[in-house]
Amino acid sequence: MNSIAYSLQEIVAQFGGRIEGNASTKVHQIATLDSASEGHIAFLTNSKYRKQLESTHASAIILAETDADSTLLPRIICANPYSYFAKVSAFLNPLPSVKAGIHANAFIGKGAKVSPHAQIDEFVSIGEGAIIGSGTVIMAGCSIGANAKIGKNTRLYPRVVVYHNCIVGNNTIIHSGVVIGADGFGIAMDEGAWLKIPQIGRAIIGNNVEIGANTTIDRGALDDTVIEDGVKLDNLIQIAHNVRIGSHTAIAGCAGIAGSTTVGSYCRIGGSAGIVGHVTIADGVEISPFTMISKSLREKGTYSGMNPFSEKDKWLKNTAHLRHLDDMATRIKNLEKELEALNRRES
Amino acid sequence: MNSIAYSLQEIVAQFGGRIEGNASTKVHQIATLDSASEGHIAFLTNSKYRKQLESTHASAIILAETDADSTLLPRIICANPYSYFAKVSAFLNPLPSVKAGIHANAFIGKGAKVSPHAQIDEFVSIGEGAIIGSGTVIMAGCSIGANAKIGKNTRLYPRVVVYHNCIVGNNTIIHSGVVIGADGFGIAMDEGAWLKIPQIGRAIIGNNVEIGANTTIDRGALDDTVIEDGVKLDNLIQIAHNVRIGSHTAIAGCAGIAGSTTVGSYCRIGGSAGIVGHVTIADGVEISPFTMISKSLREKGTYSGMNPFSEKDKWLKNTAHLRHLDDMATRIKNLEKELEALNRRES
Amino acid sequence: MNSIAYSLQEIVAQFGGRIEGNASTKVHQIATLDSASEGHIAFLTNSKYRKQLESTHASAIILAETDADSTLLPRIICANPYSYFAKVSAFLNPLPSVKAGIHANAFIGKGAKVSPHAQIDEFVSIGEGAIIGSGTVIMAGCSIGANAKIGKNTRLYPRVVVYHNCIVGNNTIIHSGVVIGADGFGIAMDEGAWLKIPQIGRAIIGNNVEIGANTTIDRGALDDTVIEDGVKLDNLIQIAHNVRIGSHTAIAGCAGIAGSTTVGSYCRIGGSAGIVGHVTIADGVEISPFTMISKSLREKGTYSGMNPFSEKDKWLKNTAHLRHLDDMATRIKNLEKELEALNRRES
Repeated sequence: MNSIAYSLQEIVAQFGGRIEGNASTKVHQIATLDSASEGHIAFLTNSKYRKQLESTHASAIILAETDADSTLLPRIICANPYSYFAKVSAFLNPLPSVKAGIHANAFIGKGAKVSPHAQIDEFVSIGEGAIIGSGTVIMAGCSIGANAKIGKNTRLYPRVVVYHNCIVGNNTIIHSGVVIGADGFGIAMDEGAWLKIPQIGRAIIGNNVEIGANTTIDRGALDDTVIEDGVKLDNLIQIAHNVRIGSHTAIAGCAGIAGSTTVGSYCRIGGSAGIVGHVTIADGVEISPFTMISKSLREKGTYSGMNPFSEKDKWLKNTAHLRHLDDMATRIKNLEKELEALNRRES
Repeated sequence: MNSIAYSLQEIVAQFGGRIEGNASTKVHQIATLDSASEGHIAFLTNSKYRKQLESTHASAIILAETDADSTLLPRIICANPYSYFAKVSAFLNPLPSVKAGIHANAFIGKGAKVSPHAQIDEFVSIGEGAIIGSGTVIMAGCSIGANAKIGKNTRLYPRVVVYHNCIVGNNTIIHSGVVIGADGFGIAMDEGAWLKIPQIGRAIIGNNVEIGANTTIDRGALDDTVIEDGVKLDNLIQIAHNVRIGSHTAIAGCAGIAGSTTVGSYCRIGGSAGIVGHVTIADGVEISPFTMISKSLREKGTYSGMNPFSEKDKWLKNTAHLRHLDDMATRIKNLEKELEALNRRES
Repeated sequence: MNSIAYSLQEIVAQFGGRIEGNASTKVHQIATLDSASEGHIAFLTNSKYRKQLESTHASAIILAETDADSTLLPRIICANPYSYFAKVSAFLNPLPSVKAGIHANAFIGKGAKVSPHAQIDEFVSIGEGAIIGSGTVIMAGCSIGANAKIGKNTRLYPRVVVYHNCIVGNNTIIHSGVVIGADGFGIAMDEGAWLKIPQIGRAIIGNNVEIGANTTIDRGALDDTVIEDGVKLDNLIQIAHNVRIGSHTAIAGCAGIAGSTTVGSYCRIGGSAGIVGHVTIADGVEISPFTMISKSLREKGTYSGMNPFSEKDKWLKNTAHLRHLDDMATRIKNLEKELEALNRRES
């Protein structure tokens, strides 16, 4: 796919670090130590994989100072090989350039303002009054609601839906199937039937956000749902109405955040985890996968409620007692009392 | 967004309740006590938030008889402020009116019958023989399969898919990304490979149903999958083949109901909960979030299987014993026996 | 829907088995014993439902040798009635035939190669250089990325997205809303913000695979994500980057497999289950629903970590002790020691 090759010298000129070995070594792609071949630059992020350096076919290596002497291959030594790798990979694999213009088979509503430097692909719908920023790419089949606003240099992969009035920031990436701004789950029981509570808030997505495939972010009931700058969301995540996710928080796939909950900045939430509604999670909290957080977390820390597992027969035999744990606790207490009484009598 | 203002008098004429204070006070939007400003009507649904009445900038308040005297602001006193709020919000925020007609860039299959009072937007596909009712809105990029039937005054947001032969009722709302009537997960092992079991039933969605973004409802294997009237489904829910969900049941996001299970009416199922296949859940059952229901529930009640959580280190230390719970139970029993024997000897 | 009727003789000529009763009995549809009527063939897969044979209105029955005499109705006796049923159902309910050709309102990118025997429906986007095989059906609103390759006799239901460079095999079925090849969740923390790690691998889907609605399969970070032949995935499943799913493994709805995990062949994974990243699961492993697998499983077997449940009040009372399980274990140990000491003194 990629054919432009760069020398280590050119790479270091861009991203810093120092070179050992032949600085004019050229590389055109990045790869793991294991799968690298001629023309590839590989990387070592953990000294325990040093052994792979012996067998790699990479032409050059990115590694840390502590591992600088563990290979004779041409190499770039840097402070953080993992983020260095990310930068080099982005450098060697640039996104397709923006093809400014509106496809003949796109639909643009009245009063919509599409930057002449935006790319609007086939079968895209842009609602009335919507605004699309410069450098932004809206791929096939996306639907942008009336008066929605998409910032600059943002990329929507095919079949993203942004509902009316919602806002997406700059330099944000939204993957296929994402739905932003659908109605939150607001219902009130009234004479034996559910009454719909109109969802008149918006969903507001910040800058430098990435949202994974088929994730859903509901609009607010009255106020807005807000995803702050730098948040990274994996696939199939549910963000309910009026949630606020603090900047640079990362959430793994299949997690769900219930309504009106506020999550701090720099949190990390594991896959299939959940948070109930109307609670507050402090900055920097980490939540294990498969963990349900049922109250506010005021202190930074790592929290878990994830079960271990075992062979099914053993698991069932053991967890059958979960339904009698209170009884077990009482019996232990009684045993302690009786034993104490016995001991007293003895002495 | 909204500019038509109504007096409290006009509102009470529509929805009942009584007015204290200036009945000609005009409001054009609804808001929370906290965020309300001039021209907004706010609401108090829980006396413990009374204090917010002192600082609100709302022009009027909706509240219950018990709170009638807790503010001097113009106010509507009613029996159920929460459902009253829902009604006033719907009144002040009407949906965009239906623009009857078929967009030039929609595709209508042979023999499809689209009501002249339906709105079919751009890039919509209507399959052969499909029927679309009066007052129904099918937004951009939806796909309606052959011989499917969509009722009256129903709204499909962009990119909904309804498979062939499926039925959607009247006054139903379906959000973006929903898939109705995809094949259920029916497979039979045959000579070392899975054989597909054709899914020839339908998915049938009732009236006054709402279905959240990216939820999936599979068609039946032989008989139909049925979502009864008034059911409310949140986002990213999986309803498997041949499930029946009883009327007015509400299910929160990320829940999954396995095949051939019947859920009663007026049930409430929490987020990320699950129900195994081939069981029956009574009317009025409530299921906690993150709870897996593994057998039929014949009695109304609230059921839970949700773990608590704690700091990760403590959690791991404690739950390591889950794999030895049966042993712990046995040891308690043995201790009781030995102590009894000792006590007998003592006496 | 279906009107061609076949005699039992014609069916047995296709699929084997032997007939008891009138071999010229004609059937045009398959149904359960319960709902079958005139012209239907029903099936008995479990002797415990024999009683239903008495009341069925089916015209013929598929059953096993052991049940051969439990009805006088015309019947086909075979080794595996369940897979026989699957075959007869497929025979009586053929998929709509392929209508070869490209719809006037589809978009075909430069250099794309679409077989003249493929069916490309309205509002489909085929990216530059993509290849679509013979007999393949791409339904309305699908988006196939640049240089992607779709095999032969494969069916994509409406609104499937396949990203650039990804590969889908032959005889594969992909349901609506599926996203194949979106970027994996690869991020590196760098100076207080997440850096995106470009995802330059592909997602590769084998032959005879079926993928349920709204499931997501991410492309690899450097190497590929691979779904091997014969894998069956239900709805709303998340398969992260660099995962490999072995042939003929079946995964139920809402499950999630984290990055770089390898799952063996012939595994069965329950609904809402999860597997952490970077582990290996042996062939033939079964995982219960709602179970999180947190380490490699080297041995075939059935594993569970699923909680039981009970009435909520009881559940909360019992599981409150989960946070003190380590303490309970210690106290049991202490009781045993003290009792032993007492017993020693006694004797």
